[in-house]
Amino acid sequence: MSDQTPVTTVTVGQYLATRLVQQGADHVFGLPGDFNLSLLDQMTTVEGFTWVGSTNELNAAYAADGYARLRRGLGALVTTFGVGELSAINGVAGSFSEDVPVVQITGMPSTTAKAAGLHLHHTLIDGDYEHFYRAYREVTASATIVRAATATRDIDAALMTALRESKPVYLGIPADVAIAPVHAANLRTPLVAARSDSGELERFEAALAEVVAAQPQVTLLVGPQVHRRSLEPLVREIADHDGVYVASQNMSKAVLDESHPASLGTYMGAFTRVDEARAAVDDAPLLVLAGTVMSDFLTGFFTQRFDEDAAIELGLTSARIADTTFYGVRLEDSLRVLHTVLGRTADAGPDGAGRAPVVPVGHPDPVSAAAPTPGAVLSQEYFWAAVQDWLEPGTTVIADAGTSFYGALDLVLPDDSALLGQPVWSSIGYTVPATLGACVAEPSHRAVLFVGDGAAQLTVQELSTVLHRGYTPVVFLLNNDGYTVERKIQSPKAVYQDIAPWDWTLIPAAFGAGDRVLTTKAATEEELVAALALARSATDKAVLVEVVLPPMDSPRLLTVLTDAIAAAAAAAAGTPGS
Amino acid sequence: MSDQTPVTTVTVGQYLATRLVQQGADHVFGLPGDFNLSLLDQMTTVEGFTWVGSTNELNAAYAADGYARLRRGLGALVTTFGVGELSAINGVAGSFSEDVPVVQITGMPSTTAKAAGLHLHHTLIDGDYEHFYRAYREVTASATIVRAATATRDIDAALMTALRESKPVYLGIPADVAIAPVHAANLRTPLVAARSDSGELERFEAALAEVVAAQPQVTLLVGPQVHRRSLEPLVREIADHDGVYVASQNMSKAVLDESHPASLGTYMGAFTRVDEARAAVDDAPLLVLAGTVMSDFLTGFFTQRFDEDAAIELGLTSARIADTTFYGVRLEDSLRVLHTVLGRTADAGPDGAGRAPVVPVGHPDPVSAAAPTPGAVLSQEYFWAAVQDWLEPGTTVIADAGTSFYGALDLVLPDDSALLGQPVWSSIGYTVPATLGACVAEPSHRAVLFVGDGAAQLTVQELSTVLHRGYTPVVFLLNNDGYTVERKIQSPKAVYQDIAPWDWTLIPAAFGAGDRVLTTKAATEEELVAALALARSATDKAVLVEVVLPPMDSPRLLTVLTDAIAAAAAAAAGTPGS
Repeated sequence: MSDQTPVTTVTVGQYLATRLVQQGADHVFGLPGDFNLSLLDQMTTVEGFTWVGSTNELNAAYAADGYARLRRGLGALVTTFGVGELSAINGVAGSFSEDVPVVQITGMPSTTAKAAGLHLHHTLIDGDYEHFYRAYREVTASATIVRAATATRDIDAALMTALRESKPVYLGIPADVAIAPVHAANLRTPLVAARSDSGELERFEAALAEVVAAQPQVTLLVGPQVHRRSLEPLVREIADHDGVYVASQNMSKAVLDESHPASLGTYMGAFTRVDEARAAVDDAPLLVLAGTVMSDFLTGFFTQRFDEDAAIELGLTSARIADTTFYGVRLEDSLRVLHTVLGRTADAGPDGAGRAPVVPVGHPDPVSAAAPTPGAVLSQEYFWAAVQDWLEPGTTVIADAGTSFYGALDLVLPDDSALLGQPVWSSIGYTVPATLGACVAEPSHRAVLFVGDGAAQLTVQELSTVLHRGYTPVVFLLNNDGYTVERKIQSPKAVYQDIAPWDWTLIPAAFGAGDRVLTTKAATEEELVAALALARSATDKAVLVEVVLPPMDSPRLLTVLTDAIAAAAAAAAGTPGS
Repeated sequence: MSDQTPVTTVTVGQYLATRLVQQGADHVFGLPGDFNLSLLDQMTTVEGFTWVGSTNELNAAYAADGYARLRRGLGALVTTFGVGELSAINGVAGSFSEDVPVVQITGMPSTTAKAAGLHLHHTLIDGDYEHFYRAYREVTASATIVRAATATRDIDAALMTALRESKPVYLGIPADVAIAPVHAANLRTPLVAARSDSGELERFEAALAEVVAAQPQVTLLVGPQVHRRSLEPLVREIADHDGVYVASQNMSKAVLDESHPASLGTYMGAFTRVDEARAAVDDAPLLVLAGTVMSDFLTGFFTQRFDEDAAIELGLTSARIADTTFYGVRLEDSLRVLHTVLGRTADAGPDGAGRAPVVPVGHPDPVSAAAPTPGAVLSQEYFWAAVQDWLEPGTTVIADAGTSFYGALDLVLPDDSALLGQPVWSSIGYTVPATLGACVAEPSHRAVLFVGDGAAQLTVQELSTVLHRGYTPVVFLLNNDGYTVERKIQSPKAVYQDIAPWDWTLIPAAFGAGDRVLTTKAATEEELVAALALARSATDKAVLVEVVLPPMDSPRLLTVLTDAIAAAAAAAAGTPGS
């Protein structure tokens, strides 16, 4: 390279921030710490990059996860070494468990300090700086301590892994590496989106066509991974084919309008609400699993009766028909191929008569609330019915594990709405910071959060960030005096089920945001109706409704589920040999 | 065994809880979750066992750590699998970094679920139930998944490791193992306290006597590990020998009254306040390091000038004289031997004249506050001086990393007082839950907490537990509008240094404990004096004082230190090759 050629360099921190912005992770969450200040100083110089300071690192991880889910792309957080990154690890593990591509970025001590094993603060005073990196290897698809000489490759590889696998990745950036210069030219080349193996995809298409052509009826069971790839529109197109029924796993209930003729509603094995819908999955002539996760909470505690091996499985990065796995066939392609094949085989079936239009299975109607009975104490049943009536299109419903999630699952969501929750990882408290992530990611949709008092206590401080940044969610704080979901499972009166009673309506003022929020308390049906009216009219402010509910009351679905968990726990806890 | 012999059994959960109670960990912190309910049901049946429900798992770990430090024994917490234990891991790593024996107990899915690799919630949905156990191996002295057949051995071994090494340990208890029966007889045998190797101890004593006899003057530098073994009284006895000077590392300042003639005050290398005191350590004819930790914050960023190899080193589990290490010689014994040897060699020195009484080195007098100037805005300098005047004997001073810690370090502590903080791990937010641990461990001492606004936001909810359990600490909430310690190091105006402004005096009421606390705000010298008078008189209530301080003001010691950190960071961040 001659001296006349201008060589444009950026720092590693700038390179990373630019890549994140290019991938839609333009808002990054986290906290400063003395080992990431240089990194943050570099990242914040990048155009389009916005820092969202969080109140603690676990909350930052949850917020980044919520952001990534709604943006259908990368989320990112920056923490400091040791104390910061370890605080975030539960959130990042949740992203792994639920297939969310979050980039955990740790500002590390300098390369020279690490090489010398200096006994710095935030270390274990044993000279080993890789303990926390190794802990992260357990919960990420890739973990990398970036070197200056290979920084652009290290960063690009990590981000592409996150996107390809839809899993979190870990980047440790030593303080000296953060400010090291690297060539900027690489940034003009977009990161390569993962593509299916074309040969495998062709073989898959041929095999699929053969199977589909033989069947007059196909049931598609749609799982949460479909959302990670933004494939809801494609699912809706597939649902319009004759002879195709679509059930969804919980969390994916909004994938297809529940009034759609092809809709079987939410499938949860034995806990599926409508028997005919369950049978249409379990006894389907041809069952296609699209982005499903076969976990306890998503299968009704493994009560599915269908034969998983006989079903066609469309996973995030591979597909399977009978005993043939097509590696490198990605969900977006396998589902598109399914759509194509269904179109091409409209004359399917042994007699060539084609597929018949679907016969709608009885859907449960949205439950509507009666007019409030004067003085009547609020129940879970009345609460969720009234919320059903109140919900408007364009809502992001966010529901914490426990009563909130199972109450929300029985809602019929309005158009242009989504449900955000954590049915697999099920970390209580996730949703308060996830609401921040949702508001940042999609400010045009109103966030409506349902969270129990026990869960909210874990992460309550992130409500401060939500309010101070000017977002206007509606927060239903379900105050039922402790860990109701655990009470339903075992030992309802045990001392460990109790929590301290808070005055929830004072929380926003204590967080210095009293003027940005309307707060109210609803312990009766009439108070709830008034609170809902307030929340609908006050669109320029956040609204916090403390909903007072009996400790042992629970929504319909949770009642049947916790009865089952309690029974299973009792069985599983049989003493060895007994 | 004949049928007539009554076989007494307890469950594994009861066995563990009994062992904890025997070792002084009679209060256990944590949260319930569906994989630990059976375990908790067993543990809570044990006499003397008290459950302290925490608001989140990180806070539970911090509280257990604070409890263990003050009790000088085991602390313990119980979390659920995955979501719970990972949230706590930063706190447990801090216990490792600072030599605190905390027992992290995880309620795991049943052995059969694990063997089958069921895709349960709280897992990574990959059938591997040991990811989190492996993460814990990075930050504990031992990590064990308990089996029913070996449960009593597994538990006893783990607790003895924690006590012997003064490090945290991890116990994973599957739900079926928690209720499995084991022989209770073993509980009649106390856990064996770790003892020194008697042969090595004899050799050490002989070698030490030879070295000490040759020296007319000995300087003892006392570090934080001395507190882990409750050796402060022994240090005070040693300080009464002629010819012995005693300096302390920060965190150990209360080990010897600073007005004691032998006291050299706090040694921090170049940041030692009195030059003669620094010289008495760096140039000591014979330097003995007792339980010291040579980390950046404890050595004034490695500015000690003494020759570590030439010093005698008394560590937790080994001692070293010149190039001979005496393995298995424990700190309690090596320090006792030092005391004995000093007594036996009063005629030390080349001429047999014995050691001369010490000549007190000029100690800084406690700084006293002037009468408040009407209308004068509060400064860090005035604040700490007024606190110095206000402190009473029998206080547990708890100080968070940052301005709080370095302000507290310059205080002269009254008698029967202790300083609790985290100078090595330095995780901000540690002290709010640690205050809970301190109150539970030692309710007879009043806890006085100093915590900055940025730090307090991370863990604020544990104040709820403190208040609802009826403890009456004094909380000084230092509101200086963000991360002052980071501002002092780098980029003071950067957006990431800002936090949301809270109305701190409303926090207790929002936590439902308004009637248990007096709250007040002090932005001027006069208001502070009034607040301190209130806190002194109101001993039957907790007191929260929001202390408003300028964002860039800092206590003396922090100012000199952050100047040094900033310089070191700038040097360390030099780009490779530059």
